Amino acid sequence: MHRKAAAKATFDIGEMQKFLDGKYAPAKEKIRDILAAPMFQHVEGLSKEQYREQVLIWCKELARNKMGSYAFPKEVGGKGDMGSNISAFETLAHFDLSLLVKFGVQMGLWGGSVYNLGTEKHHKDLLPGVMSLDTPGCFAMTETGHGSNVQGLETVARYDRETDSFVINSTTPGARKDYIGGAAAHAKKATVFAQLEVNGKNEGVHALVVPIRDEEGNAMPGVTITDCGEKKGLNGVDNGRLFFQNVKIPRDNLLDRFGGVNENGQYVTSIEDPNKRFFTMIGTLITGRVSIGAGANSTAKNGLATAIRYAEQRVQFGDPEQKLIDYQAHQGRLLPKLAKTYALDFAIKDLIDEYVNVNDETRRDVGELAGGLKAMASRHAIDTLQECREACGGQGYLEVNRFARWQEDVDIFSTFEGDNTILNQLVAKGGLSKLSKKAKEKGALGMIISMAGDSIENAWEKSIVYSRRTSPEHLKGKEFHKDAFEYRAEQTLMQAGKKLRKLVKKGVPKAEAANLCQKDLIEAGIAQIENQVFQSFSKAVDKADPQLKPVLDQMCDLYALSTIEEHKGWFLEQDYFSGSKSEAISRQVTKLCADLRPNAVGLVDAFGISEKCLAAPIAYGNIPA
Amino acid sequence: MHRKAAAKATFDIGEMQKFLDGKYAPAKEKIRDILAAPMFQHVEGLSKEQYREQVLIWCKELARNKMGSYAFPKEVGGKGDMGSNISAFETLAHFDLSLLVKFGVQMGLWGGSVYNLGTEKHHKDLLPGVMSLDTPGCFAMTETGHGSNVQGLETVARYDRETDSFVINSTTPGARKDYIGGAAAHAKKATVFAQLEVNGKNEGVHALVVPIRDEEGNAMPGVTITDCGEKKGLNGVDNGRLFFQNVKIPRDNLLDRFGGVNENGQYVTSIEDPNKRFFTMIGTLITGRVSIGAGANSTAKNGLATAIRYAEQRVQFGDPEQKLIDYQAHQGRLLPKLAKTYALDFAIKDLIDEYVNVNDETRRDVGELAGGLKAMASRHAIDTLQECREACGGQGYLEVNRFARWQEDVDIFSTFEGDNTILNQLVAKGGLSKLSKKAKEKGALGMIISMAGDSIENAWEKSIVYSRRTSPEHLKGKEFHKDAFEYRAEQTLMQAGKKLRKLVKKGVPKAEAANLCQKDLIEAGIAQIENQVFQSFSKAVDKADPQLKPVLDQMCDLYALSTIEEHKGWFLEQDYFSGSKSEAISRQVTKLCADLRPNAVGLVDAFGISEKCLAAPIAYGNIPA
Repeated sequence: MHRKAAAKATFDIGEMQKFLDGKYAPAKEKIRDILAAPMFQHVEGLSKEQYREQVLIWCKELARNKMGSYAFPKEVGGKGDMGSNISAFETLAHFDLSLLVKFGVQMGLWGGSVYNLGTEKHHKDLLPGVMSLDTPGCFAMTETGHGSNVQGLETVARYDRETDSFVINSTTPGARKDYIGGAAAHAKKATVFAQLEVNGKNEGVHALVVPIRDEEGNAMPGVTITDCGEKKGLNGVDNGRLFFQNVKIPRDNLLDRFGGVNENGQYVTSIEDPNKRFFTMIGTLITGRVSIGAGANSTAKNGLATAIRYAEQRVQFGDPEQKLIDYQAHQGRLLPKLAKTYALDFAIKDLIDEYVNVNDETRRDVGELAGGLKAMASRHAIDTLQECREACGGQGYLEVNRFARWQEDVDIFSTFEGDNTILNQLVAKGGLSKLSKKAKEKGALGMIISMAGDSIENAWEKSIVYSRRTSPEHLKGKEFHKDAFEYRAEQTLMQAGKKLRKLVKKGVPKAEAANLCQKDLIEAGIAQIENQVFQSFSKAVDKADPQLKPVLDQMCDLYALSTIEEHKGWFLEQDYFSGSKSEAISRQVTKLCADLRPNAVGLVDAFGISEKCLAAPIAYGNIPA
Repeated sequence: MHRKAAAKATFDIGEMQKFLDGKYAPAKEKIRDILAAPMFQHVEGLSKEQYREQVLIWCKELARNKMGSYAFPKEVGGKGDMGSNISAFETLAHFDLSLLVKFGVQMGLWGGSVYNLGTEKHHKDLLPGVMSLDTPGCFAMTETGHGSNVQGLETVARYDRETDSFVINSTTPGARKDYIGGAAAHAKKATVFAQLEVNGKNEGVHALVVPIRDEEGNAMPGVTITDCGEKKGLNGVDNGRLFFQNVKIPRDNLLDRFGGVNENGQYVTSIEDPNKRFFTMIGTLITGRVSIGAGANSTAKNGLATAIRYAEQRVQFGDPEQKLIDYQAHQGRLLPKLAKTYALDFAIKDLIDEYVNVNDETRRDVGELAGGLKAMASRHAIDTLQECREACGGQGYLEVNRFARWQEDVDIFSTFEGDNTILNQLVAKGGLSKLSKKAKEKGALGMIISMAGDSIENAWEKSIVYSRRTSPEHLKGKEFHKDAFEYRAEQTLMQAGKKLRKLVKKGVPKAEAANLCQKDLIEAGIAQIENQVFQSFSKAVDKADPQLKPVLDQMCDLYALSTIEEHKGWFLEQDYFSGSKSEAISRQVTKLCADLRPNAVGLVDAFGISEKCLAAPIAYGNIPA
């Protein structure tokens, strides 16, 4: 047995980086240039307060470089380029997630809420200060008692006709605004979400701009601000709590794009149905989810780049001792996760495209996809970093090698901007309502015919021959993958829908029925997204330069087959394939990992993460002294 | 839909705690009493240095209370009660893992190596100072370049006839001792593992006692000590690095129970085969693995106690809003993990019994079981805490609610005391060598007959009727569980063994063949342990008090069925059960979770974790202010 030499990639790494950078490469390059400045340097051992100040200084530097202006239209001095905005955000994530989140709160949440929920007067008045960071702000939606259930929040903004103003109150201890990034130290203003009460009637949740600190930084009268204190991670972000007692703000501070109060003190809205109005408002706020998904995937890239580069250096056992990357189990830990990272990268690119071109027609679909991809990317980042940490053994446990920081920071990505469990259910519910719309359009009979057609097609596809084919050509064929992902997406949705309908028909109250199908809905939600991600990867392979195609094709096969393998229990339950085919799939996954091994380092180098961002000594063959 | 009230447990929680405390209850009670003192209190915001001093003070208090004496025999002033020792350790883990590890290094690793590898002179000379903590020490096995591969380490202890002493050298940069708990600040002496060179011959790895600091705390001549710095967790432990340059120690400092140098300068040993000698020495050092497994499971208990108690308080969605614990998905996240925690608890109890009664005959088996359980318990703790953190949403992310600390601390349990990946393979290899021993005893023909018998039995068991039975009575029957666990344990081992043999017969070099079977070996290793854990749980249910039996029986069913569900892909591949049976198993898991929900809080309260240990405000209905 001899030790294998570091293999040369079979593709041009620079070309791969170009392909991954994609159409928004200039924005990514710009962030890389800015981060090259000496001030952007990891500093260890800062107290929470020092770290917050450091992050604020970094934010100001980004703002000075106009990185905040991508997200806003030209009329107010912005660049009107959301694709570049998110791509820059994605690149920034390689460096420091506290900086990412703090900057994202300022531009995306605080600025984004003013832009999306406000009208021209708000834009003119506030957006320049948002972009320049002269007006640091925050986004006060979540309450101590109400995280995911935004419609249930308990802060009240009552319109007072006499003074022509709103009076904001935190009506219960649970109505306190909580975890609000920027609130603990720096924010001067807040977008506060509250139940709007006009002439004694609750018009539902609306957003209002509330000054929370004066120029000297003191809390405004009636506003109590406390600090969330130390968190598991993101300690460079000053999360805080806001409690309002009779805080008075002018009528104009209501962000009134979808509903407001006119000069006569009457509530006016362009969307009469309160439920529809709420979801329209919320639907404009999906930038965060798109961005968070992208940022999470960048963090997974950091972990994989470090662990794979280390695995090419580190030897253990054997005579001579073998490199970790040459062990089957080690390949199995890291390479399927690398393939999924690539898959998510392409899926996020497609999402950005859809997001950039979003309109009222597509908004709901794009929102669901953004939520589902955020859930998948954050789950993937958390799992990947844990695997990478363990794959680097004791070295992975040292702070200097960065895993701890990445893990602690990215951990909350599964919770904020919508809890993953909820988001996956939303995807499934969206899928179901599309199904039922289709059923209504076609009428019951049409639907049955269409479903029968589907089944016949499936029956053909699932013929015994098909379900038992185990040749490598078949297993690595895109047709098989496409069919498997689609089949799973359709079937899980259909099964959840049928179960739900059956329960409701039996008289089970709707909420209880939904609860009894919760696991099915989550599984169906994930299956929809996995299918989307496969389609994006597959499309990307088709578009790739011929010299990149072979390796991307292998990576796409690995994503597809390792995902199918992960769900093999489900596929076997459905008789979608035979036991021997299932075993052949696992063998193929192992073989693909071995085949990809010589390209592993090249594939992470193509992420284009600078040494300063990655920073982990073990990623560069250095053992901490 | 109405909100469900907090349910009363169907069993006596105090009785359950007694049952869980088991036969070593007095040692657990003693630790609880000691921890009740005001000095044992979590302090946040300590620097690494302050935290280390705090932990040292705590260690001294434990030593003053004679908690270090359990592990040592009466001849040297100990109590000679290893069962109590490990049970006390398990209880201590609820409070602070830095304390646990620091105290464990002193008593178990430093003291344990002196006791197990040394002879009477070492015991008399050193153990009193170990127990009293007058001689803080450390255990210098791992090297920067050699973690799991201990036989390959590169520190050399050369016997110098002229001065009748050993000269210790770190011969390469990778030979530096690394991650050594206690080395950075407090240890005065170290058990150093080195290649023993006597008269020019390498006699393999031996352990020697090397003074590393003088009374004033200065490094001894030739010893270079550096600090590993900040780690992801366990920052109350002073991990450091040791580099030796011509460090001279007297001949008597060799721990010479299994091999030493006599007055004539000749190497003498009771075990001629160097390989056997090495594994015998290593085999005496399994206390750590038993203890680490127990400690990991205690940390999982902390997480579950907090998350489940919170889920009984926290409401979200619905009208009125429903408790988290009443949601199907939430039950599915937490309750199977609670069942596995109980399962591991009983398995660890059985392991302790085997360990207490270990002899040369059983040492290898016990060692493998200890390694496999350590791997499973640490994996389980890491996964459980992540799930619990996410199940508590934003609250779970706040330091004050403790998840961060538990996660960061327990994370390294998957790496130290033997990397989990290696340990699982060791279990499988142990299983294989038992198989091949059996084959040799029976002769080839006998083995074939015996295997044929197994297959006939399996064929009967896997008859079509059996593989399709889906009645709740069958699914919740211990016979089905027992058969499934045994079948999987046997078959995965057999399959890995056959594959390995086939490759070797084909002429593939042994190391390469093992690598090509690495995933199979890991799967087989885990399957052996899962089977053991099921047997322990099942046995415990049989022994339980009648009033505890029903709930324990349900918990055992949940452990069994959720584990089988986890591996349903494998079972379906083997045609062990049908697709519809597989689906019925999943339904049964969901139903068991719902059935157990009223007992969930009672089941975590029975862990008997004090409020001071748990500390998380959300575990006690308090929302951080």
